[in-house]
Amino acid sequence: MPQRPKKTALEVKPGVPQPGSLNPNMPRLQRRQLTVEEYVAGIRQGRRSVLGQAITLIESTRPDHQALAQEIIGRCLPHSGRSMRIGITGSPGTGKSTFIEAFGLHLLNRGHRLAVLAIDPSSPLSHGSILGDKTRMEKLAAREESFIRPSPAGDSLGGVARKTREAIILCEAAGYDTIIIETVGVGQSETAVHSMTDFFLLLLPGGGDELQGMKRGIVEMADLIAVNKADGERLPLARKSRQEYRNALHLFPPKESGWTPTVEVCSATTGMGIPEIWEHILAFRQTASGNGYFENRRRKQARYWLFETIDNQLREAFFRHPAVREKLKSMEEMVLAGRKSSFQAAEELLALFLQKDGLAS
Amino acid sequence: MPQRPKKTALEVKPGVPQPGSLNPNMPRLQRRQLTVEEYVAGIRQGRRSVLGQAITLIESTRPDHQALAQEIIGRCLPHSGRSMRIGITGSPGTGKSTFIEAFGLHLLNRGHRLAVLAIDPSSPLSHGSILGDKTRMEKLAAREESFIRPSPAGDSLGGVARKTREAIILCEAAGYDTIIIETVGVGQSETAVHSMTDFFLLLLPGGGDELQGMKRGIVEMADLIAVNKADGERLPLARKSRQEYRNALHLFPPKESGWTPTVEVCSATTGMGIPEIWEHILAFRQTASGNGYFENRRRKQARYWLFETIDNQLREAFFRHPAVREKLKSMEEMVLAGRKSSFQAAEELLALFLQKDGLAS
Repeated sequence: MPQRPKKTALEVKPGVPQPGSLNPNMPRLQRRQLTVEEYVAGIRQGRRSVLGQAITLIESTRPDHQALAQEIIGRCLPHSGRSMRIGITGSPGTGKSTFIEAFGLHLLNRGHRLAVLAIDPSSPLSHGSILGDKTRMEKLAAREESFIRPSPAGDSLGGVARKTREAIILCEAAGYDTIIIETVGVGQSETAVHSMTDFFLLLLPGGGDELQGMKRGIVEMADLIAVNKADGERLPLARKSRQEYRNALHLFPPKESGWTPTVEVCSATTGMGIPEIWEHILAFRQTASGNGYFENRRRKQARYWLFETIDNQLREAFFRHPAVREKLKSMEEMVLAGRKSSFQAAEELLALFLQKDGLAS
Repeated sequence: MPQRPKKTALEVKPGVPQPGSLNPNMPRLQRRQLTVEEYVAGIRQGRRSVLGQAITLIESTRPDHQALAQEIIGRCLPHSGRSMRIGITGSPGTGKSTFIEAFGLHLLNRGHRLAVLAIDPSSPLSHGSILGDKTRMEKLAAREESFIRPSPAGDSLGGVARKTREAIILCEAAGYDTIIIETVGVGQSETAVHSMTDFFLLLLPGGGDELQGMKRGIVEMADLIAVNKADGERLPLARKSRQEYRNALHLFPPKESGWTPTVEVCSATTGMGIPEIWEHILAFRQTASGNGYFENRRRKQARYWLFETIDNQLREAFFRHPAVREKLKSMEEMVLAGRKSSFQAAEELLALFLQKDGLAS
């Protein structure tokens, strides 16, 4: 399990693997907090343990950890942005983790360095489903050129998404040229993943009417649909699904990127179709870079994240303000009882919030 | 056209219809601003012109109008909440306005008083589609016991929705016991309507696969699906659709309200099915009141609106703060250029916002 920063310094030598921490992807405990310079240097040298600890700072709720994390992110920013960011989604049962392992090993064998991050707000306390996946992605995790990190804990999708977005910056500064952000195919987390990636891959099992159950919005986001598990007796069914999905995609309007979404079959077990998917992603990048879409989209994402962050910060500052905390409950009761309008209650709370100088702590 | 409050006093006598303002539902210009007491008294007496002017204040962006509007709302609150709030949605072509007219006249003939409000963020400048509808709802608009108001203008769905919710309070205080909130079947506005109504009616034209194109979320919200235009040669087709929709609804999980959504056919032209739909709504109310769902849902909605309003107010105060306005553009540029993280930029803007006393004006 990744360690959260503790309040007391721990008597553990830096860099020395701990008992039970055999997996080199896991961050190790440190004797002392590293300085910003040490963190940044370690990240830039591609040291996974330092990268892991820095991400743990991003995930921490302690204000001093947050301040440190933000300094590190700021220092890593100039070295970020040069990776291909790939979002992958698929419902449980589509073989997502075996796909990511097979796909990831293919990339590593072509000389790439790969980081796999996750957004899974459905299991905030258990660190998300990728933890289970991780033990299944054993071959990938064992490779020096990979870095796998479970979904951060958090009580809101917004918070989880922000942390993952910041982790991307650090991973890029650490030299990972390909970043996979994975999520499960349920609800709003796809939108979050889409808002921080360049290419969106939808993984489906073959031979059903999966598209029916899928939200139209998710299918519309996809730059590529891969019908997985196309092996053995499932191969003909997968090919049939591919044709059906291709027909269905024709009904969607053309994409702003100039890219026509494709449907491919693949098998994480036999490896069939995996190289072709990577070729598609490279072709997408060429198209989208050529027509300016790639850069333009990144700028839009940065703007989106600025306003998202403002919203979050503003709300956090408001709800942790002592006077607001004191009055919120009674205001809420008055609104519920119809004795105050929600507007009046909001105005009064806002006045309390704004009458004090500086940030409440 | 409803008049927005003007900055200069207008030399028009109160209560005297203006040329071109033959429709009694239209608010009239006033010689002088009424006092809060006069507004509240007029609303409580059921005077539609005063109600209309008060809603115009809600819609105004002028701070003095907003302050006045909030005082009026606060004073009307104790007299609100006793209506049946019905959300109606349907794509263009489903005959929504003719349905609302036929349904509304049925209610009026049974002694009810009906207000029809609208949420249509798609046409913020043209006052929404109901303006066109209104001319089509001529019979309904001509009746003393009805009040019809187009969708408020606004640049965001949130703002439009808040104004409509506040208008509900005034309409209830004016004695309207049934409120219809209508919207077009596109996107997020249904969710807004659902968040302020007790019963959700989805209007569909018969004989197609409309459910396919419909977002699953909208169908799930429906307490009743009405297949409209079930007359003449379209009747058999409408009955066929009814059966299909009934089968489809079986696939959805049971509702928290304890109410089983029904599918009916109706015709706004012949009046067939209209009384039955009202009977269903009354039956729903009995079920949902009996098991406590009705009251509980209203409380949840009030809480939701409190937090929505806090969010909006907070954001508004932030973005109109002079120091924030001055710096926002350059911060945005730095984030887009990758010279600052979105978190750092947000923090710095927040510090500017919070260092001044009181509300920026």
